[in-house]
Amino acid sequence: MKIVITGGTGFIGRRLTAALLTRGSLTGPSGANEPIDEILLFDAAAPAERAPEWDERVKVVGGDISDRDTVFGLIDRDDISVFHLASVVSGGGEKDFDLAIRVNLTGGLNIFEALRARDGLPRLVFASSIAVFGGSAMAKVVGDHAKQTPQTTYGMTKAACELLINDYTRKGFFDGRSARLPTVIIRPGKPNAAASSFVSSVFREPLNGQPCVLPVGTDAVMPLLGYRAIVGGFIALHEAAGEAIGDDRAVSLPSLTVSVGDMIAALKRVAANRTLGPITVEPDPFIEEIVATWPLDASHQRATALGLPRENDLDEIVAAYIEDFLET
Amino acid sequence: MKIVITGGTGFIGRRLTAALLTRGSLTGPSGANEPIDEILLFDAAAPAERAPEWDERVKVVGGDISDRDTVFGLIDRDDISVFHLASVVSGGGEKDFDLAIRVNLTGGLNIFEALRARDGLPRLVFASSIAVFGGSAMAKVVGDHAKQTPQTTYGMTKAACELLINDYTRKGFFDGRSARLPTVIIRPGKPNAAASSFVSSVFREPLNGQPCVLPVGTDAVMPLLGYRAIVGGFIALHEAAGEAIGDDRAVSLPSLTVSVGDMIAALKRVAANRTLGPITVEPDPFIEEIVATWPLDASHQRATALGLPRENDLDEIVAAYIEDFLET
Repeated sequence: MKIVITGGTGFIGRRLTAALLTRGSLTGPSGANEPIDEILLFDAAAPAERAPEWDERVKVVGGDISDRDTVFGLIDRDDISVFHLASVVSGGGEKDFDLAIRVNLTGGLNIFEALRARDGLPRLVFASSIAVFGGSAMAKVVGDHAKQTPQTTYGMTKAACELLINDYTRKGFFDGRSARLPTVIIRPGKPNAAASSFVSSVFREPLNGQPCVLPVGTDAVMPLLGYRAIVGGFIALHEAAGEAIGDDRAVSLPSLTVSVGDMIAALKRVAANRTLGPITVEPDPFIEEIVATWPLDASHQRATALGLPRENDLDEIVAAYIEDFLET
Repeated sequence: MKIVITGGTGFIGRRLTAALLTRGSLTGPSGANEPIDEILLFDAAAPAERAPEWDERVKVVGGDISDRDTVFGLIDRDDISVFHLASVVSGGGEKDFDLAIRVNLTGGLNIFEALRARDGLPRLVFASSIAVFGGSAMAKVVGDHAKQTPQTTYGMTKAACELLINDYTRKGFFDGRSARLPTVIIRPGKPNAAASSFVSSVFREPLNGQPCVLPVGTDAVMPLLGYRAIVGGFIALHEAAGEAIGDDRAVSLPSLTVSVGDMIAALKRVAANRTLGPITVEPDPFIEEIVATWPLDASHQRATALGLPRENDLDEIVAAYIEDFLET
């Protein structure tokens, strides 16, 4: 079977690709376990270089997800699954509303229509976000049964796609599953336009011996999850029996609720033998305003019942990052 | 100021037009009460005849709401308000998914973009629906804080438009307000493609001396509201202070929760001096399946706090219909 990963050359897309290459098979539209013969990574721009772990099964295509013909060209077989990760992120969406609508909403609709045009019931795993929650009436603990009143364009488009995926699935157009992601840590590389970018920086920059300037205070609290559990969750959600998911195809991924202070403490514990760059706080009102709209705590009973994984604690997440990305 | 009513030549659009002609003014984008010099009724097809109550202020235009240029041509002044009532209805949406997406979602986006293109903050009142609620996890009593997991394409597009209107309003693109309608009774004329069509037929056909064949049993229960309170609610929501509505711009309209048996009893009470056509039950699985997805009861604290009206009981609704549409 063929796997399409939109946003596939981003950090999570690459981790997911590596996991699928190792795994070698997934449940196909037939319901049987099928070998993966192609993994197509689609992204706004194809990277200049191939990753060393990509074998001949991996193809890379750059293009505009808001172009219907482009997307229909990617989803060109019936024995196919799609992991739809491509998205304008939260900070980016606040700065360019039209781009967020074009990529996240029109792009999503193109994916949904292309899957609908195939024979059978191909599976779709969609990267939704805890940013679907927010606003003055937001519950203290948000989860699978909380009303979605997002306060960012990013979160609004994710909530709209959850609704669309539920309905396309109900209509029998494809078999969709949405995974509501908390903040994902620890992303390697450089900060990005996501308002949550600092939650990786607080670990990554000090571990690289660089200073980290936090845009929010150490008492800020949020639910988060390590990238290993995110990738494991995507695959587990793809493999779950449809009947076990039911008519609401979206689940909040498991998460750990911690403060920025907890993050710094875990970093200092796990990396006690390393020289860490300094961490300081310089409040950034633009980021603070977005972070203030995030939920403080998230429940995740449905994902846990489906067997989706979670790291035990922050220490496990920091240790995994050191193992995966630093010289030990 | 100019008022655009999409779906304006339908039953509720005509009642709203009559109410606005009598009222003569609304709060304009300036915040001041402004005389209405034009009411533009937009609909899929312009009716062959003008209603007798339409004076020279009323203009009628037929066209396709999914055509962006058409919609931008309607919303051609800054001193404007829009009542967006146009919609493919529930039964129609189940039979033609693509039409529901084109009219309800693309059409909605065209309205939102055209309002955004105006200077100032024009007000929009959107006819959403209690059909945004549904599914296996639906609360027994749904309302302003209930999660929206619609089980019809109609309800899904209404929920998506609520999300979009919240975000366009948050961004300062226009001043949107969504009114979540329960089943509206008593519609005159003929049955339509809405799954709820029988809830008007059960009154209308017997009052006209005609038989009514109910597609569901008399124990079916649902929240409903008379058309006078619906129109009053649209106008009151348009006039409400934005700060009183807050960041979730959608409210469930007030409603009465009654059974089909209650409806028949009220009809027989209020029309005791009339010869009524017979009412029989012949279950229709297509309609029963949709009705089974509706909520049994609805709360409406926010609308009530905003002063939106409700009839006292079914008897008042039946008496109003007789006064408005039958020879007394």
